[in-house]
Formats: sequence, structure tokens, C-alpha cells
Amino acid sequence: MLPGVGVFGTGSTARVLVPLLKAEGFEVHALWGRSEEEACCLAKELGIPFHTSRSDDVLLHQDVDLVCIYIPPSMTRQIAVKALGIGKNVVCEKAATTVDSFKMVTAARYYPQLLSIMGNTLRFLPAFVAMRQLLVEGYVGELQVCDVRVYGPSLLDQSYGWTCEELMGGGGLHTVGSAIIDLLSYLSGTRAHRVHGLLRTFVQQNGLIRGIRRVTSDDFCFFQMLMGGTGSSSVCCTVTLNFNMPGSFVHEVMVVGSTGRLIARGTELYGQRNGSKSEELLVGDNGWVGPEVKEMPLPLLQGLSSMVKALRQSFQAKEERRCWARGPVATAPTFEDGLYVQTVVEAVKRSSSSGEWECVEIMSHEPDPNQNLCEALKRNKN
Amino acid sequence: MLPGVGVFGTGSTARVLVPLLKAEGFEVHALWGRSEEEACCLAKELGIPFHTSRSDDVLLHQDVDLVCIYIPPSMTRQIAVKALGIGKNVVCEKAATTVDSFKMVTAARYYPQLLSIMGNTLRFLPAFVAMRQLLVEGYVGELQVCDVRVYGPSLLDQSYGWTCEELMGGGGLHTVGSAIIDLLSYLSGTRAHRVHGLLRTFVQQNGLIRGIRRVTSDDFCFFQMLMGGTGSSSVCCTVTLNFNMPGSFVHEVMVVGSTGRLIARGTELYGQRNGSKSEELLVGDNGWVGPEVKEMPLPLLQGLSSMVKALRQSFQAKEERRCWARGPVATAPTFEDGLYVQTVVEAVKRSSSSGEWECVEIMSHEPDPNQNLCEALKRNKN
Repeated sequence: MLPGVGVFGTGSTARVLVPLLKAEGFEVHALWGRSEEEACCLAKELGIPFHTSRSDDVLLHQDVDLVCIYIPPSMTRQIAVKALGIGKNVVCEKAATTVDSFKMVTAARYYPQLLSIMGNTLRFLPAFVAMRQLLVEGYVGELQVCDVRVYGPSLLDQSYGWTCEELMGGGGLHTVGSAIIDLLSYLSGTRAHRVHGLLRTFVQQNGLIRGIRRVTSDDFCFFQMLMGGTGSSSVCCTVTLNFNMPGSFVHEVMVVGSTGRLIARGTELYGQRNGSKSEELLVGDNGWVGPEVKEMPLPLLQGLSSMVKALRQSFQAKEERRCWARGPVATAPTFEDGLYVQTVVEAVKRSSSSGEWECVEIMSHEPDPNQNLCEALKRNKN
Repeated sequence: MLPGVGVFGTGSTARVLVPLLKAEGFEVHALWGRSEEEACCLAKELGIPFHTSRSDDVLLHQDVDLVCIYIPPSMTRQIAVKALGIGKNVVCEKAATTVDSFKMVTAARYYPQLLSIMGNTLRFLPAFVAMRQLLVEGYVGELQVCDVRVYGPSLLDQSYGWTCEELMGGGGLHTVGSAIIDLLSYLSGTRAHRVHGLLRTFVQQNGLIRGIRRVTSDDFCFFQMLMGGTGSSSVCCTVTLNFNMPGSFVHEVMVVGSTGRLIARGTELYGQRNGSKSEELLVGDNGWVGPEVKEMPLPLLQGLSSMVKALRQSFQAKEERRCWARGPVATAPTFEDGLYVQTVVEAVKRSSSSGEWECVEIMSHEPDPNQNLCEALKRNKN
């Protein structure tokens, strides 16, 4: 039986998500927005019966069994952890820091019977599902290189906000790079152990963000990841993100191996085995009939749609409306995957400052918030 | 008046070059090959009256005023320096080391009246000539990012030889990367000051290279260059070279600036200004009617052809057959450019071992060949 849904967020993703949920038969009972006004406005537009700017009103809503959190990264942890504590299933976007991600992992481990997945949507896109399957079947032989490029227009909001601030989780690396980092670990079945990167903010001010305000989040980023085995057996991944390209959108993921290669361009998948004369189309774009959203590239949009379908199957498999079957969402990124992704993002940022290769070390216990204080006290003693 | 030409080399470039020279009215009088047999065979095929395996026979040949050197990198310096010493004009391929490149620079400085250019051909390709011009005119605004990809089949020769050996000047970085490094300095009008890179040899043995023999030259290389100003005003260049892609050839050079971008795909040039809805074709492929060469990608082939045309114009402008006008070959890479390129190549290799950003420092005096000996003597003294 399908659970009632509560949605957090009034941004472009939330705006797309609600119709997708409804199309699959979910009932959306409540909407949360940062201001009463934003919430009211979007609730009216999307036909949601209840809206609020107080998070508890959604979390404690008796008809809400599944909470979808698509809000600025810095607020995600708080809502996600609380939702699990109240016994709700959670689908959410990335957090802003590894400490936040770690707290979410702890909560998810504490409530293993609740659904807790990252709303990273590329894993569900049919092209990438097929790419993963073909990699497992050995289409490319031994995987050597992954090469990803995402080019597009600016990611900045119309007005000054978290998208402009690196520390708030803004920027190409955090917003788009996260999804790519997750995707590459899904495709390769391994994780990055060393990374190197370079971030730039080419556009620090524009017509809307000026005066004393400056953008600190990256609009250009390239990074390399060494994944899997060590030394020469590791897979080399290179990722180039450029969001200074108005009017264009390129989303290309290529994997090259010893006997062939696979290339996802947008939502289509192509392949070529060594020795064959030309590329073959493996997954076509199957004529997307859903909504078109200017701010949201088609691969993300279709991935989101496929994820909602998987959620429907997962809940439909069970009688009880809060219960879900693991099968249909087995490949979804867990909160542990979210922590890994956040760790890589921070390692790339560190590398960009240090200029050196940085190790990816997953946090295994929460840092003591009083550590700085303790150290200061120790110093004073001596 | 056009000079008589002597060609060194029997490889694919030499094989293409001779017909191109003849088509422009040059007479090719002599051919040198490493073995008498190779030289004889190709001379017959191309209708060259004289062939030899002794370099002096070409260099001292009385009808030869221009020497074109397309031989393995490790042999280039010796021939090029000697040719200048004998008073011949020189067009040649890259050397194997910075020390060799430096010796060539010294020779070129010593004989400024002689033509001495690197046979790097991408600068002459009409698409890149136009790209350079548009960059100067401000088509893209302030240059931010250059992004280059060259993908293709293996660069290894059929049999074991210098192409397999990193120290002999083999590998994607040295062979193809050199041309890209030179091109980017031509396009941007600046030079790299820091580089970071990663090299891999994915295919270390194949059907023909096996047993105790192993390939040491790179078949995958990814490097970044910071060019021009320091700090955030520098141009970020990323170059991806992958030669594990049989059956494909991709040659793409993109420059992105504050107000638009230019993209050369193969021999065509496209552009898009911010705000315009689609790319415009700026330079078409103008229907290449010359020879098609399997081992030589079209951009290099057409670039070579354009360079030969420029050489013809340069010599035609003067009466005396050894004299040449600077104008038509003013944009050709000098031996100084060759030294710069070789320095960047070695810095990228160093970075790949050290894992760190490496500075590009152009050699200003020849290292003392006895330095190691001197140091050993000093150590023994103490």
C-alpha cells in the first residue's frame, strides 16, 4: 500500500517531484516551505491540502509516512534525523558537511526498518542501469578509465542564497559533482581512495549579486579519482564540470575498458567494442513525455521519475502503508553512500587548496565538538 | 625561388610530406632512412632520385637547401643541429629531452638567418588560425578554461621500437600532447607555469610486444596546466589523451570565456556566444581532397598541408633559393617553443610520479654533463 507523503522544499526539484509522485499514485498530504508564503503559494499551485513553515507540522502529520527532503544542504541533516526518530521513511538530498552526513548515517543505522535513501537520481536512469549491467557482463573488458563532463549554464539562484556559498553546500562540485561521484561508484562497484582537484569561481559577481557580496561556490571544477585497486590496477576517473556555458547542456559519461567502451550522452547509451567499426545505440531516449523543466537537465529529471517508480514498487509490495520491500530500491544510494560522496567532495576541496592528492578516509566516529576547547585548555595549562 | 628539399625519415609523416611538398612545387632531391633498404624502398615509391642511410649524404647534398626531419625523437637533435651548422634551413619534429631541445635552441640562435621551425602542424590548421584570431578579437571575452580531448587507437608501431619506450620519446603525452601544449600556448598567447598530470600504460603487452618486452610509454594521460596570470586570473587547461580506443578518433579543443566559447571538432570550428540559442559553424571542413592516411588524423594531415603551403609562400617571396621571408611562417613554432613544450612534457611526467603540481622552468643554460662525476669526486674527498 502506498504511504502518504510529506514534501520539504519549494525549489525546482520539489516542484517536479510532487507531480511525479502523484502520477505514480502517491498522495501528497503536506508541504513545508521556509516561509509561510512560499509554502502557501506552491501548495495551492500543486494542489496539496496542507502547508506550513514549521517542520514538526509535517513530521508529526498523521497521514505522512514518507518524507521527501529537497531543501538547502545545510538544513537537511536536522530534518532527516528527526524524521527517522519519529518513525518516518526518508528520501533526501545531500547534506552540507561530512559531520552532518555522519549523523544521518548514525540515525539510519539506528532505524534499519525505515527506508532511508539519498535522492540522488542518476542511478535510476535507464541508461546507467544498462551501463552498470553491461559493465558487469564484461562489455568493456577490464575497466580502465571513466571520463565525465557536465557543462551547463550557471547554477546560481536569481537572488543571493546558499547556491552562492561554498560553505552552505553551493557550487558545481557539491551540487552536480556529488551525483557523478555516486554514479561512478555505482557503475564501477568500487570507491575512490585518492582524489585530486581544482575549483574555480570565475563569475564572482553578476547583475544580481554585487556590492559587498561575492560568490564563493565553484562554477568550474575538475577532479580525478583513483578508484578500486591500488597502483596501476586502479581505475582513473576524470570529471570536468563547467557552469559558465549559458545556452548549453552537456552530460556525458564515458567508461573505457580493455575491449570496448560505453558512452552515455544525456539519457542515451552508446557502445563500441574494439574491432567494430561504429558505435551502437544501446538505450534510446524513449521519448520523455513528463514535464520539461528549464533548471533541471533531462538525465536528472528522468532519473527522478524512475526513482519515484521504484519507490512505488517498493511500497506496493507490502500491505502495511509504512512497510516497503528492499528489492525495487536495492540499488538506491544509502546514507552510507551519502557519507562517502560527501567525504570525496571535501577531499577534492582540500586537494584544490593543498595542490596535492588527498586520501578519502570515511569518518568512523563523530569528532568531539569540544576538541578545540579541550586543546585550548591543554595549551593554557602548559 | 623554392629550395631543394632533403627528407629524413621513412615513417608515415615522411610518406605524406613528400607528396605535399611536390604538390606545392618543391623538388625533393634526397631521402634518408635508417636502413639502406627502407630508404631505397620509399625513394622508389615516391620517385625521389637519391636515397641513403648516411645522414651526411643528405646534409651535404648540393641541391638540398631545406631539410625536413621526421625521425624518432632521440635522433632529431643530432641531425637538426648538424644541418644548421652546415647552413641548411630546418623543419623538424620534437626531440626526446629538454637537454636535446636546449641544444637545438642554441644552434638556432647561432644561425638566425636560417629557417628553424618545429614541424608541429596544428597551428597552421585553418580552424585554429581562425580560433586564435577570434580569441584576439574577444569572441569569448576573458579566457577562462581550455578543455582538450584526443581519443584514438593505439600509437604503438607494429613492431617493438621507440613508440613503446617512454625514455625514447614514445607515448601519447610526448607524441600528441606536445602538439596540444604548443597549440594552447599559441591560442592563449601565454605559457603554462604550473602543471599536474597522471600517466598510465594500460596496455603493457600485446600480440606483437610480449615475452620480456613491456611497453613503458603512456596510452592514457590526463594533465592540467595553469597558464598566464597567477592565482585566480590564470587560465585552467585540462587535456585528456586516451589511446585505448580502437576504431575511433576524437580531436576536440574547446575554449570557454566570460562571454562565449569556441569549439574545434576535428577540422571544423564552432562558436557560441552567451545568449545565443545555438552554435554557429565558423569554419567548415572545406572538403579535404589530399591523401587520406590511416595513421594520421585529419587535423594533423591538413595542418601539415597548410604548413607546406606557408613554407612555399615564405621561400617564393625571395629570389635566392636559400632565402625566406619571415611573414608566412611567423606563427610557426620556433625551437624556443619546442624547448618550452618539452619542458612542460617533462614537468607533467614529474608530476605523475610525485603526485604534486610541478613548476615549468625553462632551462637557461646547459647542465654540466660532468656534474654527477664532480659530485662523486667531492663525496670521495670527504
